[in-house]
Amino acid sequence: MNGVPLLDVLGTFVFAVSGALVAVRARLDLFGTLVLGFATGLGGGLVRDVLLGDVPPVGLTEWPLLAAAVVAGATTFWWHPAFSRWEPLILLLDAAGLALFCVNGALKASDAGLDVVPAALLGMITGIGGGIIRDVLANRVPVVLEGGWYAVPALTGALWAATAHGLDLSAPFVVAPGIAVCFGWRVLALRRGWSPRPARHPGG
Amino acid sequence: MNGVPLLDVLGTFVFAVSGALVAVRARLDLFGTLVLGFATGLGGGLVRDVLLGDVPPVGLTEWPLLAAAVVAGATTFWWHPAFSRWEPLILLLDAAGLALFCVNGALKASDAGLDVVPAALLGMITGIGGGIIRDVLANRVPVVLEGGWYAVPALTGALWAATAHGLDLSAPFVVAPGIAVCFGWRVLALRRGWSPRPARHPGG
Amino acid sequence: MNGVPLLDVLGTFVFAVSGALVAVRARLDLFGTLVLGFATGLGGGLVRDVLLGDVPPVGLTEWPLLAAAVVAGATTFWWHPAFSRWEPLILLLDAAGLALFCVNGALKASDAGLDVVPAALLGMITGIGGGIIRDVLANRVPVVLEGGWYAVPALTGALWAATAHGLDLSAPFVVAPGIAVCFGWRVLALRRGWSPRPARHPGG
Repeated sequence: MNGVPLLDVLGTFVFAVSGALVAVRARLDLFGTLVLGFATGLGGGLVRDVLLGDVPPVGLTEWPLLAAAVVAGATTFWWHPAFSRWEPLILLLDAAGLALFCVNGALKASDAGLDVVPAALLGMITGIGGGIIRDVLANRVPVVLEGGWYAVPALTGALWAATAHGLDLSAPFVVAPGIAVCFGWRVLALRRGWSPRPARHPGG
Repeated sequence: MNGVPLLDVLGTFVFAVSGALVAVRARLDLFGTLVLGFATGLGGGLVRDVLLGDVPPVGLTEWPLLAAAVVAGATTFWWHPAFSRWEPLILLLDAAGLALFCVNGALKASDAGLDVVPAALLGMITGIGGGIIRDVLANRVPVVLEGGWYAVPALTGALWAATAHGLDLSAPFVVAPGIAVCFGWRVLALRRGWSPRPARHPGG
Repeated sequence: MNGVPLLDVLGTFVFAVSGALVAVRARLDLFGTLVLGFATGLGGGLVRDVLLGDVPPVGLTEWPLLAAAVVAGATTFWWHPAFSRWEPLILLLDAAGLALFCVNGALKASDAGLDVVPAALLGMITGIGGGIIRDVLANRVPVVLEGGWYAVPALTGALWAATAHGLDLSAPFVVAPGIAVCFGWRVLALRRGWSPRPARHPGG
């Protein structure tokens, strides 16, 4: 793996599939699908590495990440599911990418010497970055605006990972609960539909 | 303040309120409001620090900035004004953030050794960055496109700050006129309505 | 030229004209036109330099680049063509900027020590960056989604430049074919209209 964490490769793959599905639904060609898959899969990691000063980012230099993004885009283009409702699948894969990247980003930031709160924030940004780039490029409502059902799970998962890493817990206890809480929380939100509680408006 | 300039904290606060008001109007939940407040309040500083190579950015590591963004978002969500016309208030707070950040960005760039023009450009980018991120996420027309009434005031304020800093004027003469010219110019534009003078079109 | 490659100045100029034309068509004022020209002309180089860790980016510090962007925006505002169909001209200039920047970005990345594939990817990102920023700010469908007719030509041109640079070919053989293949491929796409071949949809 050339020192690229498995979490990074998995997160890149599932986020790239989510981006490629958006591209297929928008009827882009193979290469447009690869581009949107690339941007979605590698975007969060690029933002993470730029904010940590780890340049050039691993998303440009490490083969496993590039391969994960290409394979995800191409297989999605050719064998995308014969699916009548795309959005739930896109959002499910997005949730998996969110969970993998928020933990991965928090761990990389902790290893770079950041304190718990900055590391957790950086983990959250890593998790939400890919989806923001995908949605801005595709002119969708950015999924990150579902704050309590998107950014908060990512921050919580990242906070767990950064805290547990600081306590020197063994790897499974650092990684698994962080991924589980973020993914589970997000899936719960998808099952019950997005129903934010907006601020009360006078007369509204 | 841990070395975080007061300008940075104030700018973060007012920009975060502007972002949170956009979120409240769009009926996001508490956390979506906090996310948009965060992105708006801290976005310009993140861009500034990345362009200066000062990573990890202070917007992730300094408590006063994080607290300013959180307090701004939460108080806006719970006690947002019973207001029938939101846009003028959003734009007024945006103008305050623009003025504070263009001066602050120019000073930080000058301290990092940049010449006057690059420092002024970086100040402008710091000022306009938060609003661009807010408007792109919220799918609004980016306020920066009001060039002569937005980017130019920011550039002018930043140019004053960078020049006066280079002349070793005392702090009030560096900061106050820069903020005043940018904020005053922008408020003037808001009072008279946005009326750009477009290029002449043949037959139009 | 203060060490700024001619490719960078030319690319900045033509991209800035494309951004300024979008601004003129949207009836922005002179300064809004300059802002969109700046963002389009200098955006790709800013992204390139941030990803390479070469900060502050040359787009803020080098006079030839700043002058190219200003001159491009102002002349476009005052003497924009009396044109009934804008889009083909915008896309033609965009194609020229794409070709110049993909080669330029790949060469700068190679000089910074990146291998061929990472250098080519960075060249592609440099080429597509300005147009993405322009289209996101102006709320247009990002031209980069025309994958096979946009990102792939950029990647191919960049791949040629990075490979030829690695083989120590003389400058004309490094630069000219890379620009020619990217620009020619893109112009061909524009002449025949954009007709991507989307993935097959069941029942569609």
